[in-house]
Amino acid sequence: MDKNLAKEKFLQEFPDLVDELEQLVRSYGMPEDAIDWFKKSLNYNTPGGKLNRGISVVDTYLILKGLNHYDEIPPLEFKKISLLGWCIELLQAYFLVADDMMDKSITRRGQPCWYKVENVGDIAINDSFMLEGAIYMLLKNHFKKDSYYSDLLDLFHEITFKTELGQLLDLITAPEDHVDLSKFSLQKHSFIVIYKTAYYSFFLPVALAMIVCGLNNEKDMKQAHDLLIPLGEYFQIQDDYLDCFGKPEDIGKIGTDIQDNKCSWVVNTALKICNNEQRSILDKNYGIKSNENEKIVKDLFNELKIDQIYLNYEQDFVTDLKLKIDKIDESRGFKKQVITSFLNKIYKRQK
Amino acid sequence: MDKNLAKEKFLQEFPDLVDELEQLVRSYGMPEDAIDWFKKSLNYNTPGGKLNRGISVVDTYLILKGLNHYDEIPPLEFKKISLLGWCIELLQAYFLVADDMMDKSITRRGQPCWYKVENVGDIAINDSFMLEGAIYMLLKNHFKKDSYYSDLLDLFHEITFKTELGQLLDLITAPEDHVDLSKFSLQKHSFIVIYKTAYYSFFLPVALAMIVCGLNNEKDMKQAHDLLIPLGEYFQIQDDYLDCFGKPEDIGKIGTDIQDNKCSWVVNTALKICNNEQRSILDKNYGIKSNENEKIVKDLFNELKIDQIYLNYEQDFVTDLKLKIDKIDESRGFKKQVITSFLNKIYKRQK
Repeated sequence: MDKNLAKEKFLQEFPDLVDELEQLVRSYGMPEDAIDWFKKSLNYNTPGGKLNRGISVVDTYLILKGLNHYDEIPPLEFKKISLLGWCIELLQAYFLVADDMMDKSITRRGQPCWYKVENVGDIAINDSFMLEGAIYMLLKNHFKKDSYYSDLLDLFHEITFKTELGQLLDLITAPEDHVDLSKFSLQKHSFIVIYKTAYYSFFLPVALAMIVCGLNNEKDMKQAHDLLIPLGEYFQIQDDYLDCFGKPEDIGKIGTDIQDNKCSWVVNTALKICNNEQRSILDKNYGIKSNENEKIVKDLFNELKIDQIYLNYEQDFVTDLKLKIDKIDESRGFKKQVITSFLNKIYKRQK
Repeated sequence: MDKNLAKEKFLQEFPDLVDELEQLVRSYGMPEDAIDWFKKSLNYNTPGGKLNRGISVVDTYLILKGLNHYDEIPPLEFKKISLLGWCIELLQAYFLVADDMMDKSITRRGQPCWYKVENVGDIAINDSFMLEGAIYMLLKNHFKKDSYYSDLLDLFHEITFKTELGQLLDLITAPEDHVDLSKFSLQKHSFIVIYKTAYYSFFLPVALAMIVCGLNNEKDMKQAHDLLIPLGEYFQIQDDYLDCFGKPEDIGKIGTDIQDNKCSWVVNTALKICNNEQRSILDKNYGIKSNENEKIVKDLFNELKIDQIYLNYEQDFVTDLKLKIDKIDESRGFKKQVITSFLNKIYKRQK
């Protein structure tokens, strides 16, 4: 199905969710100015991104049901499945509003970060809480009577907690204002990207669709988990690679990981293979807000041929993943295509 | 049962919960420094308060079961019921860590606020998330197999969301740095205190104990709700009164509501009855960080006899509540004593 059309159909569901939440808080007798504030936060922080995660829920549902087009899904079913997609987008909004405050970011999705908007400031902390809170109000309204209701709740809780753990490790390993490369390691990098990104971006959308399709048995969940988590890790490693080696005209931004002291796959790989002399170059120049120091680090990365190491890693990873996809047991209803469709979106991407 | 003994027995349960959460994140392969951080946050932010909310869960359970002493509760039952109490304390820790950041507070419970602790800073936002996340990890471990599991989850979600709504209205009605008394009203005050305080402090402990005792039928829940929410509102009005009219030697602190531009019952009552001249005195002097302005406001409150209005309100409220307690229907198992024991803790308190 056409990607833009899918996004459009998914987006059309969002205003109804805002209305539903508005009606809920209105029924509590919440004064008008607070209702307006909440709606503004929902609209400002939730729908402005690529919506890949939310749309993946619907796409996975299509594959599992053997359908080709959103229009083949009965309207009520479409409402429910896309609501789950929006719940992931709300979860992401909750994380991003807070991440931007902790990272002291200035813009997000081409507009000021929410906490930078006039009169918002630190109130954004409570707004992030409410974005998360909205998830459970919506889930209760739409899924309370389904046999798998508590499975949905457990899944959201578990993935939320895991994402927070990943975020914690990232924050204490790579604070922007204090460089200490001895804290870095590929092992920590792996934990951070799996917990902070892979769980909610790759496993969660598929697991949600599987639960709705009645495929939440242990074996199929494990098949999905064991392929999607590595795929999510690969996605983030690719992201780290592109930040350093991608062309700005391709990736649409100028990479800042080196100056921002990010615990990236690139620097961790360099740390693993460098000699003492190269290590002291990294210690002196990584994480410093200066183009000169950044250039010295980049030159070292080139000298160490990190780009070639990446290409080899990617080759090996994808070969191995394809073998594993071939071995997927489809007997209970899980489908290889769920994984391949993710892989096809990611493999050899340049942005 | 002796109050200190109860607190001690309740407190003894906490280290086990920290161990349980440590084991969980350790099983994820979380690196040691992040495990230590999480444990430190749990221990720093959760048990240092009066623990009234947590202990109320156990106390309510005792009353509903017709028992007199914690030791009469079978050990496994005691573990479960006090765990629910600790979940409220975790919920409170989640709110307080964030509230202190939004209010720019310096100390909490006689120690620096968590975000003021060295190296913590804005990471406290993610730590607050994890305090909330811990609730659901614990609930799943201990209640997943109980028939009322999803009722527990729904209740925590609903009360959490309501508390966030109350906090939002408070934040936008009474920002510390911008005084605008035209935003205040007794109606908004009522919404704020009910949503921000009464739900999680008064209704939640009782509702949790009721669920575990199998009393989560609509009628008994409504009886509890309709008495505990007004009681919680009364408690907060009392708090506002004591901040202004209590003796520092009794309440153990010097009230700051006037200088902090708080949307307190006292100022809202004054706004309701004052004439134009008095109103302009309030507009000029409320919410200003100066003892002189504060004195002018206090003199006006005395002139308006707000303390007498409070005493009349309290008298009327308590008389009415006692009549309602008398009418409680105990036929399904709910007990009048649940409400009276709360009222006795609060009525005519001076701190």
